Amino acid sequence: MSKRQTIFKEISPSEFFYRNRDLAGFSNPSRALYAATRELVENALDACETACILPDIFVRITSATIDGTLADPKPYTLKVQDNGPGVEPKYVPDAFARIFYGSKFQLKQSRGMFGMGATMAILYGQVTTNKPVLVTTSVDGEKAYTFEMMVNIHDNTPLVLNRTVKPANGKTGLSVQLTLEGDYSRSGSKIQEYFKQTALVTPYANILFIDPNGRLFFYSRATDKMPKPAKETLPHPLGIDIEALRRLLKESKEPTLKKFLSKNFHRVGDNIAEDFLKFAGLDAEADPKRLSNDEITRFVSALHSYKNFLPPDARCLSPLGEELLAAGIEKELQPEFLAVIQRPPSAYSGFPFIVEVGLAYGGKGVEQGLKLLRFANRIPLLYDEANDISWKVVNEEIDWKRYNIPQDAPLTIITHVCSTKVPYKTVGKEYLADRPELERELKNGVREVLRRLGTYLSRKNTLAFAKKKMNIYEKYLPLIARFSADLIGATKLPNYKKLLKKSVEETAENFEEPIVEVENKPIENKVVKLEQRRLEDFSQ
Amino acid sequence: MSKRQTIFKEISPSEFFYRNRDLAGFSNPSRALYAATRELVENALDACETACILPDIFVRITSATIDGTLADPKPYTLKVQDNGPGVEPKYVPDAFARIFYGSKFQLKQSRGMFGMGATMAILYGQVTTNKPVLVTTSVDGEKAYTFEMMVNIHDNTPLVLNRTVKPANGKTGLSVQLTLEGDYSRSGSKIQEYFKQTALVTPYANILFIDPNGRLFFYSRATDKMPKPAKETLPHPLGIDIEALRRLLKESKEPTLKKFLSKNFHRVGDNIAEDFLKFAGLDAEADPKRLSNDEITRFVSALHSYKNFLPPDARCLSPLGEELLAAGIEKELQPEFLAVIQRPPSAYSGFPFIVEVGLAYGGKGVEQGLKLLRFANRIPLLYDEANDISWKVVNEEIDWKRYNIPQDAPLTIITHVCSTKVPYKTVGKEYLADRPELERELKNGVREVLRRLGTYLSRKNTLAFAKKKMNIYEKYLPLIARFSADLIGATKLPNYKKLLKKSVEETAENFEEPIVEVENKPIENKVVKLEQRRLEDFSQ
Repeated sequence: MSKRQTIFKEISPSEFFYRNRDLAGFSNPSRALYAATRELVENALDACETACILPDIFVRITSATIDGTLADPKPYTLKVQDNGPGVEPKYVPDAFARIFYGSKFQLKQSRGMFGMGATMAILYGQVTTNKPVLVTTSVDGEKAYTFEMMVNIHDNTPLVLNRTVKPANGKTGLSVQLTLEGDYSRSGSKIQEYFKQTALVTPYANILFIDPNGRLFFYSRATDKMPKPAKETLPHPLGIDIEALRRLLKESKEPTLKKFLSKNFHRVGDNIAEDFLKFAGLDAEADPKRLSNDEITRFVSALHSYKNFLPPDARCLSPLGEELLAAGIEKELQPEFLAVIQRPPSAYSGFPFIVEVGLAYGGKGVEQGLKLLRFANRIPLLYDEANDISWKVVNEEIDWKRYNIPQDAPLTIITHVCSTKVPYKTVGKEYLADRPELERELKNGVREVLRRLGTYLSRKNTLAFAKKKMNIYEKYLPLIARFSADLIGATKLPNYKKLLKKSVEETAENFEEPIVEVENKPIENKVVKLEQRRLEDFSQ
Repeated sequence: MSKRQTIFKEISPSEFFYRNRDLAGFSNPSRALYAATRELVENALDACETACILPDIFVRITSATIDGTLADPKPYTLKVQDNGPGVEPKYVPDAFARIFYGSKFQLKQSRGMFGMGATMAILYGQVTTNKPVLVTTSVDGEKAYTFEMMVNIHDNTPLVLNRTVKPANGKTGLSVQLTLEGDYSRSGSKIQEYFKQTALVTPYANILFIDPNGRLFFYSRATDKMPKPAKETLPHPLGIDIEALRRLLKESKEPTLKKFLSKNFHRVGDNIAEDFLKFAGLDAEADPKRLSNDEITRFVSALHSYKNFLPPDARCLSPLGEELLAAGIEKELQPEFLAVIQRPPSAYSGFPFIVEVGLAYGGKGVEQGLKLLRFANRIPLLYDEANDISWKVVNEEIDWKRYNIPQDAPLTIITHVCSTKVPYKTVGKEYLADRPELERELKNGVREVLRRLGTYLSRKNTLAFAKKKMNIYEKYLPLIARFSADLIGATKLPNYKKLLKKSVEETAENFEEPIVEVENKPIENKVVKLEQRRLEDFSQ
């Protein structure tokens, strides 16, 4: 008999993530400052878009110590404010100071996926600086409630220290201010890159960021057009496992299996329901609440093997659209050539997704070589690039020789995946798993934009060649004309100018298509240049 | 006022990981079968080692369907059984069917780190096959309790369907049997590789694995020596944040801050406690329970800036040791040359760690080129290699030209990191984050084994050169001797054989060191060859 008995105990969800911060991207002061900023900004953008409000986002990071010259890592105060619909005051304590309590637990495209970003940022701030978080919210524009809170990590419960009410002056929205140990000297460039790329896929937002050195980065709205908001959707039969089915059956109010199927599943109508139940060998008129364990198992395995379900409908998704994507690229990169493509909707394991790919050739300050910008549900993904499925596609699966693109061409490839469930491999939302369906769509998208660039470049070469030829004509045609005239003793030169003009026109014809290819849709030219000014400019 | 109010709700920890299986490595049937196997095997090994029992591990994966010819993915039954100390029956339901309830939540080196592997495997099995798990345990060798259980995912509570008691026939230990959807045709080679590498770092274990095709893989014990078990340790001051300090203060039974420090922290005695409190500007005689919020903040920031704390003591760790590592490599790879090194203990953020590096040159069935085998707390890490700090060190930070090792040399480099807290970046335990302290130790370890290989190879070259020289001597010396004798008219040849013998001896002297370099420690030659037989061999 052993004396060393194992000791078991239970920990709360807050405790788990407090102990394992690396898992959520809060590994060190540099990563934490980056992660906290993006989690709060992403919540702000999600809130505005859900309510169809053009986002105005204000972000400020300031040193939290009186001695501003203190070396990193040191405490910083992070404030993120939006003009969204706000959060009902009664939800605030749980929503912000409790892990696994949130608004993202539904089948709907959103930036947030795990419902824990803001709480993780608050928790990290608390354990590194011992300062409470301040959350101010107004849902009606009349009253603004401010909560001063901490997290009781041991029990995973909120601890409200203070609550005040003030007039909201007609403004709805949310503001979160927290103090955390950070390292801006290491993470500053990533944070700036994050805002730049966010602006690229959110051209309908105003984003103002003030960094700890007082530098002001203003990404102004380039268009008033917003993508239509994402909708919550019913689960697709392919994405259903036994647990999910059991719950649906338990909560079912339908009297028969046939009605149960057509009411609870995505794209299943009466006809398909009937055909499926026949296939599964289940009674269409049976009571959903009375299925046996064996029948439930059979039900699920039939759901996965039945071939006639319709594919998921991507109308619940909110892709950027080719127009907005092109506007964002044009605004941020100002390339010589750009191509964007939205692939047709597809699905993996019952979750619909849409891939969008953009390509920019050349541009302001763009260096030689290939740069990949990855986005998922409008979030820029900046870390762990080499793990991402897009990286694999671009670097390993594309046969570059086919496109006649020089190796050192100044190329930016943009990939955007939107889905009701993005297959992230970490809570830190850094990279996507390689699902075969996703891989196929990305590959086709990248090939298409490369093909268009190849065409553009070969036309450009043709034009350059034609111009060179024209230069030779312009130089020698007059001489030949004169020589021929002299030879036959003519006094008047032949009209070689007409010939020259015709050649020029023919060449130009070959090249008159626009350089922005947006599948025949016109692009509104509302491009506003990126403004990047120092705060001092404002105080003049 | 907005009409689209956000809806908030809470989910349980089981629910969270049920929805986000990718996070714990259960992405698809192939990965899930691999992950479930390793999680249960690692629990079994941890249990045996904690109780100082030489592990006998039995693992069997069988098709769970009657029709064995069904194509993958399909249900498999996985059974893992050990001869460890068992789990007290009263803990079984919570320990196996409740997320965040476990035995790994302490500061101690173990394979498990997140305390959720077994529950995740059970949960995955349940949602894919609707089958309960069977857990059999005996802690006294008299009675064996079998629990038939499921997880109530919605509430994160165990659901015991049945509980039986049988005689244990003198055997303690634990057996877990679950049914899950898997894909052995895709994951089989990874699972086999997992066992092979596990045997390499666990040469004191018997591991028997029977795969779904009835093939039997037996990794037999090569030594009875076990590493001394890891010990639980007090937290080091450098690893303490505000939350941890607040808790320690709350639970403190010491009357003064000085006593509080010397009782609750790793390697802090009365002298250091006194000096530190002076440095922090805190009263050594103050009551730990009465510190103000500001004092606590000051306390922690002083803990992180005080320079005279002793580094963490690695005696709580259980590295493999050079002897066992060499035995494992010898047994599994049978190389032409091997070198192993254990680096001195180091620490990151207050967590002690030890790096061990092994190198094998050549060997049975070893291919040309470099192969990296990564281990952490005796777990082989098989996925996402390119993200790992060891990969970065070996591929990007080593100046290979310095060691004169041919590019296509058949080289295996083994890295093993053991720590009370391995800095994994995912719950799936696939790769380590790049902490600078870890990077430094790995780099130094790899450099050292490469240096030794370089020396070996250059000696081998010298020997080869000398042998060649010797061959020439052997061929021409007799001729020269005869020629010289003829020249001076001597009838007896000079004794060139003596000369030849001396040369051979000199050459051999340069090469008489053993090819296994284990820092002057003798290595027991208990190497048993890997046995890999078909089950049929047994039934004869």
